[in-house]
Amino acid sequence: MRLSRYFLPILKETPKEAEIVSHRYMLRAGMIRQQQAGIYSWLPLGLKVLRKVEQIVREEQDRSGAIELLMPTMQPAELWKESGRYDDYGKEMLRIVDRHERDMLFGPTNEEMITDIFRTFVKSYKDLPLNLYHIQWKFRDEIRPRFGVMRGREFLMKDAYSFDMDEARAREAYYRMFVAYLRTFKRLGMTAIPMKADTGPIGGDLSHEFIILADTGESEVFCHKNYLSKEVPGDDVDFSGDLSGVVADWTNEYAATDEMHDEAAFNAIPEADRIAARGIEVGHIFYFGTKYSDKMGASVMAADGKDYPVHMGSYGVGVSRLLGGIIEASHDENGIIWPKAVAPFDIGLINMKAENEETSAVSEQLYERLGNAGFDVLYDDRAGQAGAKFATMDLIGLPTQIIVGPRGLKSNEVEIKDRATGAREMVSLDGVVDRIIAGK
Amino acid sequence: MRLSRYFLPILKETPKEAEIVSHRYMLRAGMIRQQQAGIYSWLPLGLKVLRKVEQIVREEQDRSGAIELLMPTMQPAELWKESGRYDDYGKEMLRIVDRHERDMLFGPTNEEMITDIFRTFVKSYKDLPLNLYHIQWKFRDEIRPRFGVMRGREFLMKDAYSFDMDEARAREAYYRMFVAYLRTFKRLGMTAIPMKADTGPIGGDLSHEFIILADTGESEVFCHKNYLSKEVPGDDVDFSGDLSGVVADWTNEYAATDEMHDEAAFNAIPEADRIAARGIEVGHIFYFGTKYSDKMGASVMAADGKDYPVHMGSYGVGVSRLLGGIIEASHDENGIIWPKAVAPFDIGLINMKAENEETSAVSEQLYERLGNAGFDVLYDDRAGQAGAKFATMDLIGLPTQIIVGPRGLKSNEVEIKDRATGAREMVSLDGVVDRIIAGK
Repeated sequence: MRLSRYFLPILKETPKEAEIVSHRYMLRAGMIRQQQAGIYSWLPLGLKVLRKVEQIVREEQDRSGAIELLMPTMQPAELWKESGRYDDYGKEMLRIVDRHERDMLFGPTNEEMITDIFRTFVKSYKDLPLNLYHIQWKFRDEIRPRFGVMRGREFLMKDAYSFDMDEARAREAYYRMFVAYLRTFKRLGMTAIPMKADTGPIGGDLSHEFIILADTGESEVFCHKNYLSKEVPGDDVDFSGDLSGVVADWTNEYAATDEMHDEAAFNAIPEADRIAARGIEVGHIFYFGTKYSDKMGASVMAADGKDYPVHMGSYGVGVSRLLGGIIEASHDENGIIWPKAVAPFDIGLINMKAENEETSAVSEQLYERLGNAGFDVLYDDRAGQAGAKFATMDLIGLPTQIIVGPRGLKSNEVEIKDRATGAREMVSLDGVVDRIIAGK
Repeated sequence: MRLSRYFLPILKETPKEAEIVSHRYMLRAGMIRQQQAGIYSWLPLGLKVLRKVEQIVREEQDRSGAIELLMPTMQPAELWKESGRYDDYGKEMLRIVDRHERDMLFGPTNEEMITDIFRTFVKSYKDLPLNLYHIQWKFRDEIRPRFGVMRGREFLMKDAYSFDMDEARAREAYYRMFVAYLRTFKRLGMTAIPMKADTGPIGGDLSHEFIILADTGESEVFCHKNYLSKEVPGDDVDFSGDLSGVVADWTNEYAATDEMHDEAAFNAIPEADRIAARGIEVGHIFYFGTKYSDKMGASVMAADGKDYPVHMGSYGVGVSRLLGGIIEASHDENGIIWPKAVAPFDIGLINMKAENEETSAVSEQLYERLGNAGFDVLYDDRAGQAGAKFATMDLIGLPTQIIVGPRGLKSNEVEIKDRATGAREMVSLDGVVDRIIAGK
């Protein structure tokens, strides 16, 4: 993409309303624009990252055997009256009355609707296990939306729902999602630590929040430092096999948010191995048994010919919130440092002097060669000061920059800069594409 | 995908509420489920088609130079008060009050919001031309939603908005979208005819509806039969070049909906060349000048240093509605016949006897070979009657079926069936993958 034809409204001033770095950088880099409190437009650069994050989340859901569908944003109040949550949910639920005076709401989550779909179509144990997920915009009318996309009102969430005959099989479903989440966050370039979460009246051990560490995290978290180096299952992981070993490995050491913190247990860890830090929740998985299936009559016939309420779990990832989380965990004073897997473009190509024929000809040629080699390149072909171009590229955080300037071209070279390390080197014009391929 | 692990709730009974064939088949094939009047869940099979249609629409928007962003579903009432449409829009607008008593609405379209984004960031003629689009769920509170996804309340629309300095350049932008639409519908496997539409107080000739012919179409349409065979520009079309010739070719003969019908002009066509049929609107493009930029203060500085209101156009495609339109145009008494480009799977593989070791072994092997060759296969590996399996495959309309039965295997053959023509042939087991590749 040529910057001269793109829509990338970079802000020079830091917006005053932005309290945390991800919010500041997303606004400054022209990724998002606030339309109302907690409601954002995703400008082209932001949308590209959002779609990449979404796609990784999707691929790992699919790999684990979950099946994608899409429920609408608008839900009828009746379903929520069945579950009893219509009155309980309070003012965070955006309630709407349509032209026929029917009560509706903008879905904040989908347990009721998916249970309704399930009870309509699934009647037999033979159709289980089943895990249905969707990636859809949700709305929660937060009283004080803040931190940009980290606590917005309209936000994109992946929510999956598992259905099983009994708790033992629901546990297997839970483990599949547990492993899918480990893989998802790893692929997104992050270390996410599963921390035991409150199970409320359900009890048991099947509730975990996945937390990434960042100084600006919303809550205090505590864990063993081994979590920073545990192995995440590779592409060959068998989701139809026994995953209990992986889950055991990822839960056998201390890890808790402040809500669940046990000071004594934490202090039992050797002091050098303790991590007390701030964290951001990016996923939450939860087994809730027959809570909804009891109330909503979602039963399936077992092998014995009798009907039983289905056992369910729900599994959320805050897709739009993840962008904030990634930036909080990966930035410097000059801007964002995108992990390669979610970078909006692979390469930023800078023509230092658009009015110079030679730099322009070489830049054009490189743009074409890199495109042909399969790279998605953002090419700054605009007139303007080199300094401003460098600042923009650093701000938007593409992994690799290629800088074409008159001085380098005298010796037939261009500069390659690695955004994360800041390392720069001069590379011959002939070798630059191979060099980029090698560094992939 | 193995059907035993998929979620494909086929209905045996034809739902009574479905008046038209696309609605009936989408319900029966387990593509959608109604959650409330005019509001649907997209079940896995339906979602796969929806995403394919969406992706083709996106690719052709991108090719034409339009840039994707994503505006939220929720909009503030203030913007619509600026344009004057808040009061005009009537009961089709879903109006909402949030917890802080602020007036919001579920966007039925986005002229106001995109104009607001434009005026915030774009100040100079140097940043034009610009065409920004998004693909987002909209809501129109239809008084009588009907025909399934053809006239739903919550629906997916692609809407693009062009910004230019003057009418002449806006016309070029309009032509680019005109050609992008021709290409989009062609790629979707349809013949869409651009028909002159009402321009209202704006006047001029820059408003067209794109109509596909189908017996169940909502309106009567009239055109020259040459429209059925006109050439659509290929992949090499130059969107930075002059497209007026293409547009002239596609507008130089009579084509009108009943609203714009001119009986005398139609009768001037030789009788054998007249088509009077029913049609479904699948796209609408419209130049509306400075209607919104005047009211909302969206001006840009021209080369003369003065500010002028920007000239705009809007360009819609009903993405979810298109699925209904495609089915109306492409089905038979047994079910849907998907054009290859949007089929949910490439191939339906039927194991006629899941309890037979040999058919199962061969089916498994074929499933793997076809997957390795890059085909997306829906594999009916379930127990059950062959007849029901054939009926399901015909209903869901995958382009090609491969049937593995004990009789064919005696001579080492399987059957290939073309869904559209009904043609069947026996092919040797060794040659079947090559045969499918050749028929691609």
